[in-house]
Amino acid sequence: MAYFKNVNHIQYEGPTSKNPLAFKYYHPEEKINGKAMEEHLRFAVAFWHTFTGDGTDPFGDGNMIRPWNQFKGMDLAKARVEAAFELFEKLNVPFFCFHDVDIAPEGGTLSETYQNLDRIVTMMKEYMRTSKTKLLWNTANMFTHPRFVHGAATSCNADVYAYAAAKVKKGLEIGKELGTENYVFWGGREGYETLLNTDTKLELDNLARFFHMAIDYAKEIGFTGQFLIEPKPKEPTKHQYDFDVATGLAFLQNYGLRDHFKFNIEANHATLAGHTFEHELRMARINGMLGSVDANQGDTLLGWDTDEFPTDLYSTTLAMYEILKNDGLGKGGLNFDAKVRRGSFEPEDLFYAHIAGMDSFAIGLKVAQRLIDDNVFEDLISERYQSFKEGVGRDIVEGNTDFYKLEAYALQLGDIKNFSGRQERLKSIINQYLLDVHRNVTV
Amino acid sequence: MAYFKNVNHIQYEGPTSKNPLAFKYYHPEEKINGKAMEEHLRFAVAFWHTFTGDGTDPFGDGNMIRPWNQFKGMDLAKARVEAAFELFEKLNVPFFCFHDVDIAPEGGTLSETYQNLDRIVTMMKEYMRTSKTKLLWNTANMFTHPRFVHGAATSCNADVYAYAAAKVKKGLEIGKELGTENYVFWGGREGYETLLNTDTKLELDNLARFFHMAIDYAKEIGFTGQFLIEPKPKEPTKHQYDFDVATGLAFLQNYGLRDHFKFNIEANHATLAGHTFEHELRMARINGMLGSVDANQGDTLLGWDTDEFPTDLYSTTLAMYEILKNDGLGKGGLNFDAKVRRGSFEPEDLFYAHIAGMDSFAIGLKVAQRLIDDNVFEDLISERYQSFKEGVGRDIVEGNTDFYKLEAYALQLGDIKNFSGRQERLKSIINQYLLDVHRNVTV
Amino acid sequence: MAYFKNVNHIQYEGPTSKNPLAFKYYHPEEKINGKAMEEHLRFAVAFWHTFTGDGTDPFGDGNMIRPWNQFKGMDLAKARVEAAFELFEKLNVPFFCFHDVDIAPEGGTLSETYQNLDRIVTMMKEYMRTSKTKLLWNTANMFTHPRFVHGAATSCNADVYAYAAAKVKKGLEIGKELGTENYVFWGGREGYETLLNTDTKLELDNLARFFHMAIDYAKEIGFTGQFLIEPKPKEPTKHQYDFDVATGLAFLQNYGLRDHFKFNIEANHATLAGHTFEHELRMARINGMLGSVDANQGDTLLGWDTDEFPTDLYSTTLAMYEILKNDGLGKGGLNFDAKVRRGSFEPEDLFYAHIAGMDSFAIGLKVAQRLIDDNVFEDLISERYQSFKEGVGRDIVEGNTDFYKLEAYALQLGDIKNFSGRQERLKSIINQYLLDVHRNVTV
Amino acid sequence: MAYFKNVNHIQYEGPTSKNPLAFKYYHPEEKINGKAMEEHLRFAVAFWHTFTGDGTDPFGDGNMIRPWNQFKGMDLAKARVEAAFELFEKLNVPFFCFHDVDIAPEGGTLSETYQNLDRIVTMMKEYMRTSKTKLLWNTANMFTHPRFVHGAATSCNADVYAYAAAKVKKGLEIGKELGTENYVFWGGREGYETLLNTDTKLELDNLARFFHMAIDYAKEIGFTGQFLIEPKPKEPTKHQYDFDVATGLAFLQNYGLRDHFKFNIEANHATLAGHTFEHELRMARINGMLGSVDANQGDTLLGWDTDEFPTDLYSTTLAMYEILKNDGLGKGGLNFDAKVRRGSFEPEDLFYAHIAGMDSFAIGLKVAQRLIDDNVFEDLISERYQSFKEGVGRDIVEGNTDFYKLEAYALQLGDIKNFSGRQERLKSIINQYLLDVHRNVTV
Repeated sequence: MAYFKNVNHIQYEGPTSKNPLAFKYYHPEEKINGKAMEEHLRFAVAFWHTFTGDGTDPFGDGNMIRPWNQFKGMDLAKARVEAAFELFEKLNVPFFCFHDVDIAPEGGTLSETYQNLDRIVTMMKEYMRTSKTKLLWNTANMFTHPRFVHGAATSCNADVYAYAAAKVKKGLEIGKELGTENYVFWGGREGYETLLNTDTKLELDNLARFFHMAIDYAKEIGFTGQFLIEPKPKEPTKHQYDFDVATGLAFLQNYGLRDHFKFNIEANHATLAGHTFEHELRMARINGMLGSVDANQGDTLLGWDTDEFPTDLYSTTLAMYEILKNDGLGKGGLNFDAKVRRGSFEPEDLFYAHIAGMDSFAIGLKVAQRLIDDNVFEDLISERYQSFKEGVGRDIVEGNTDFYKLEAYALQLGDIKNFSGRQERLKSIINQYLLDVHRNVTV
Repeated sequence: MAYFKNVNHIQYEGPTSKNPLAFKYYHPEEKINGKAMEEHLRFAVAFWHTFTGDGTDPFGDGNMIRPWNQFKGMDLAKARVEAAFELFEKLNVPFFCFHDVDIAPEGGTLSETYQNLDRIVTMMKEYMRTSKTKLLWNTANMFTHPRFVHGAATSCNADVYAYAAAKVKKGLEIGKELGTENYVFWGGREGYETLLNTDTKLELDNLARFFHMAIDYAKEIGFTGQFLIEPKPKEPTKHQYDFDVATGLAFLQNYGLRDHFKFNIEANHATLAGHTFEHELRMARINGMLGSVDANQGDTLLGWDTDEFPTDLYSTTLAMYEILKNDGLGKGGLNFDAKVRRGSFEPEDLFYAHIAGMDSFAIGLKVAQRLIDDNVFEDLISERYQSFKEGVGRDIVEGNTDFYKLEAYALQLGDIKNFSGRQERLKSIINQYLLDVHRNVTV
Repeated sequence: MAYFKNVNHIQYEGPTSKNPLAFKYYHPEEKINGKAMEEHLRFAVAFWHTFTGDGTDPFGDGNMIRPWNQFKGMDLAKARVEAAFELFEKLNVPFFCFHDVDIAPEGGTLSETYQNLDRIVTMMKEYMRTSKTKLLWNTANMFTHPRFVHGAATSCNADVYAYAAAKVKKGLEIGKELGTENYVFWGGREGYETLLNTDTKLELDNLARFFHMAIDYAKEIGFTGQFLIEPKPKEPTKHQYDFDVATGLAFLQNYGLRDHFKFNIEANHATLAGHTFEHELRMARINGMLGSVDANQGDTLLGWDTDEFPTDLYSTTLAMYEILKNDGLGKGGLNFDAKVRRGSFEPEDLFYAHIAGMDSFAIGLKVAQRLIDDNVFEDLISERYQSFKEGVGRDIVEGNTDFYKLEAYALQLGDIKNFSGRQERLKSIINQYLLDVHRNVTV
Repeated sequence: MAYFKNVNHIQYEGPTSKNPLAFKYYHPEEKINGKAMEEHLRFAVAFWHTFTGDGTDPFGDGNMIRPWNQFKGMDLAKARVEAAFELFEKLNVPFFCFHDVDIAPEGGTLSETYQNLDRIVTMMKEYMRTSKTKLLWNTANMFTHPRFVHGAATSCNADVYAYAAAKVKKGLEIGKELGTENYVFWGGREGYETLLNTDTKLELDNLARFFHMAIDYAKEIGFTGQFLIEPKPKEPTKHQYDFDVATGLAFLQNYGLRDHFKFNIEANHATLAGHTFEHELRMARINGMLGSVDANQGDTLLGWDTDEFPTDLYSTTLAMYEILKNDGLGKGGLNFDAKVRRGSFEPEDLFYAHIAGMDSFAIGLKVAQRLIDDNVFEDLISERYQSFKEGVGRDIVEGNTDFYKLEAYALQLGDIKNFSGRQERLKSIINQYLLDVHRNVTV
């Protein structure tokens, strides 16, 4: 059956004032700097928001109108897979992502859960034989079920820890079976509600032990996906251990795990941590740990994870700038960890929203590439830090100095001359590049 | 003398990749919907940020390189006026704004302060005889001097209250003398640091008495400018009485002052209060109280008033949308209550920054006008609220119903059908209109 | 049946180090300033959090262990009522509060919903014949069901508006039947998600029409409860029209509704709006509109409504200070709009939590009364504002002056002398009063 | 001369209702767990806030009434030292802290600055010969002067870097001369205003090089103080590299610096980073890096560093709990990095404020010690994590398991049983311990 019957016009109609979307900017095969747009962007659909989510919020019941709402249990799970591959094809997206519980219902026992998963995975694998859409990453949901109330790999309950291990073990097996590019760890309840009842040291030690066992197991079964940690500062917990990139990095270094992980950066998690999206991307990049991206946006005037589809072109441009400077995301991609607003409850909105996000990143890619082609920031930075390429600055960078020499140098200095950082001008230049996106790029 | 010697290239050179600013989008005489851009936009330079501000921040001393730094006292005051009119002309801005203490130093006594002010006002008036630049608004600074530590018109000290009255009286006289369009009240210290030592009721009563006396005096001397209240939620005080538009409105209504005031809306004050800029504009507009705008932007990840030059085109577009729906700002304008970053300390940055802001609002104007021309939001809203134009909805709007009738109607209703609010699609449409700004507008 | 079997020790055991709670501070009949504590405090249990809530959060399924979980449908509704009156008695609370949907399941039609409600209301009325616990307030939930996705009395859909009217009509009837003290309006979805698709003016007009019809209907049926508006700035909506007290006041004044409403102030809503709890209480108080209190607390480092049980003694003290200065809450009370943390999922936690909240407000009451008895703030404030009791200050307060006279006065002033506000000392004094709470109060 | 003439009554008068402060709780020689209070608490006065600060804020001029305001230049510097040692003695504080520029004015050249510093250091050393007050830490101010506009050790200007090196070199020499316990690095401008013009990687590399040179120089001259990094997330910069403890730790580990530093944790910096004070203390403690404390408090409803004197007893209790669990602060102490409010401008307020802070920490110490004596949290935590002391949990902790074994264990598990975290009860217990502070402690 076809689940999405009234949406063909959305993608295929040309952009008119009445239907202005329809991939106006995203053209998968268009070359940017010699590489096809679809290779640059590696979009993924998030199974949970698009096929499992129902519009529930803390003050409202589920309200999404979905063609598969008529089904239940495993039939519902199958219908969602069918609808998913229909949407993947209609939107022409190359990847998708899921948590275990998104794709199959939990059984009465762990064994039954495994069986449910196996049936759906087999079905997915069959679909993927002919679909162009591949698995960007999978993960285990270790936060929704009541058993995880006090955490999973940081639970105060060893039984829960063991259960979590079983879930990740199964997740790695599923990932291998479906040829995933990555495996993600987002520890939604790996943190604390109050320090008063929490042994933070033991919990962090246990979390590290968990990761080491996961690495061992992946190696043992020949799992070749990249391991990713996804930072988030809070929500649902009061404090999540993987607060931001820096915190994740400190943890990984502390426990000898750095070489085995990269980061999955989510825009809205960055802003909840008090950072811009591009800050987190930059911090991951300069540490060689930028792995993948959860492409969404938040509302900085609201204090929770709104997971909006990304439409802010400043944000997509600066994100793509970091990604291009990173020579792309490697095995990673741009996963729309985004949900349509509760008021956008019709099936068509799923298409409008994904197209909005894909077009916005296509624009960001074009603008960022042109900024790089023109060395806009690079020239400025090269000039700004010129003093470290010669004389005392070069000695500093090359380690040929000490406090004696630097003091002697400083004592003979007259007034020091600094130069403007030109922030306002840079902001204007970005606007100009943005509005000139229709110009042909010359590479 | 000429204060700005190396800036001519900034405005007059054509936009190239090396000099991409230079009013690429702001063309004063270009007609938008039949009215010249400069009539729509009514830009103003803020004297305090551009001529008095020195780059001081809570952790740093003044660092701005300014050609008038060589002067002191009244000579400094005069040099600033000279430089100001030079910049006004070079940037071709039609308005400026000031606080009393921006333009002239305080004297040892209030009388001396008056004399200092009079000398500068005379000088300004002379300049304005030939300049095209007029006074958008003036105001009295009642927050910097130690005497205002506990407030001005809400001080616990009646002497301070009297002093504040004298300052506003003088301000109205100066405004009249210079033909100001408006007079602004921003009560930076009209609030409290702690409720524990504050008689909030008496302070609010006194504030209302102060405004009534100001109205009386303005009437008496034939002052014809519009009175404006500028809301801000906090900073420097813990709580400022004019928190936001709604709070200001409650106060004005409470004390019979509503007809005498409009609001001066500042973007960064809106975000500090937890609102978007366009929210505050909308709230003022639908209450018929949108008077003028302090055009800047904040950083929602920082918790203080950063007063950045406005460059976010989403913000300028949505602001201009509200302003156009208001049929413009009347006597009001767009005052750049914005300061160059402390790192942008060279005189050229003043030009880059103002051009950035003026171009950004010019783009916002164009995009907003086209959205209105195409009835993008209007058509959607008309359709969304259709049910209030007929049947039970019309009865509601026209007051022809009651709870009995509505209940009877509800009891016979089957499932209620709602329609998607299409938020994601609307966001995409704005992006498309933004990137199409180079298209010719057809009016 | 008894629902709470293992909790008797919690309330009745004396306070030892192993069981330190057990109403150590709350003694219902203890006289404070001549009035029994239970008359001062008028505690209420919130039916939704304590009997309907199941621990669901945006990332987690329900996990609360509740003796009534075994039931379904109307049986569940009845079991909850039985459990409720058992808990009311065990905790000795004088009031409770509910939304319509908390107490009875919605039926397939509005008529069926009415029937379900009627059956439970009859049951409650029977319980209340012998119970000391009365109804503080009821309300209609107009935010959970999908029909309210775009609002209720501010919906863009007139059918929804009519449905909402029917719900409030029924709510007023139920309130009358159960002898409620108040009726609350909290408009969880009365606001907007985006200005782009919203006719804010029409929505506010419609909201006012709705309130006027509610007033008319209440009058018609002889409903004598106090109408209360409960402000909240956001969540679930991006912006809620009743942002805070000031915003609510502006609205009520704008539409001629001021005399018919008071405010129900919630601590956590205050902090989400950027205010302290005591600020909102103060603003309501000095406008004669302090009606009732939702007694909880938030976490100012988290951006959502955590609805924690109130345990911060600074907050309860300053709240009780405002309430005592208001001569109490009249028909209002202190409703624990608070939920046990998701990690506190055992039935005993409901007792620990309520006792924590009740003891905390009992302490706050004692400390606040003693601060008032000793005129701690009153003396300071009287001295601080002394200058408004004589001379120029008295002229200001009495309206016997103008800008001419004030200027003349200011011109002859020498240096103005201010006095310290002594904020640090006041903070210390509060600490001292808090730690001295065991002292006997002399009244 | 005596600078503080009217304050003797503040400290020495007994606590009455009219003078309720006067060290009611802080008794230096009182033994807590066998150690004198003054050894536990190691209070320090911050020279900058108390002797150099003048009340300036972003909207207000200096307004503090200080007996030394009559002096200028080096005379002013000397007067401040005299006043400082008078206050130290009157308050009986054992330590103080300063930045170089707090104690002596900068000269026209670096050499002159050195000379000014040397003269004051000699004077201080002379005072310290007879005073009981020692130097807790000193530091170099590398943020106020315009030369540091783009940073110091992370400046884009190598001359500035060299100048900064000279300042730290001198700082270490001064610290050694005065027998300091610690040397602090707070990088107020070590961060960025915008990523667009910033080479973050080079800046961080340079910062690490700077620290390595500082370590080398300290070793060379036999400087024995502890090096401390003080995290802060932002203000004055948009982003400060030492965002929080975790970020600092990642940096130190990344660059082989971990063994040479501990953290100086400031309460208000913690909250600006989105953390509680106790969180940052805990993170430093469990990593063995808790060095010292800047004892103040912020206002979480304001977005800037308010640096208030600490009076919140919850905060002082939980801070002292972490410090006691750390076996004290070693060479560190509790530095009042706190300023009297601008409205508290009289000299007496300095005394009220310090007494408020000292008493608040004395109470916190007493309450925390008793919580530890009674094993309130320890017993609960021991029970909560019991499952990791036996069976599968013990295998996890001892590293004797893997995903195969854990899965096998999980597969045979029935329903997993968790236990309540009892957060509400814990909050009540803290209240009870707080209000029982007058009870005798039995050790």
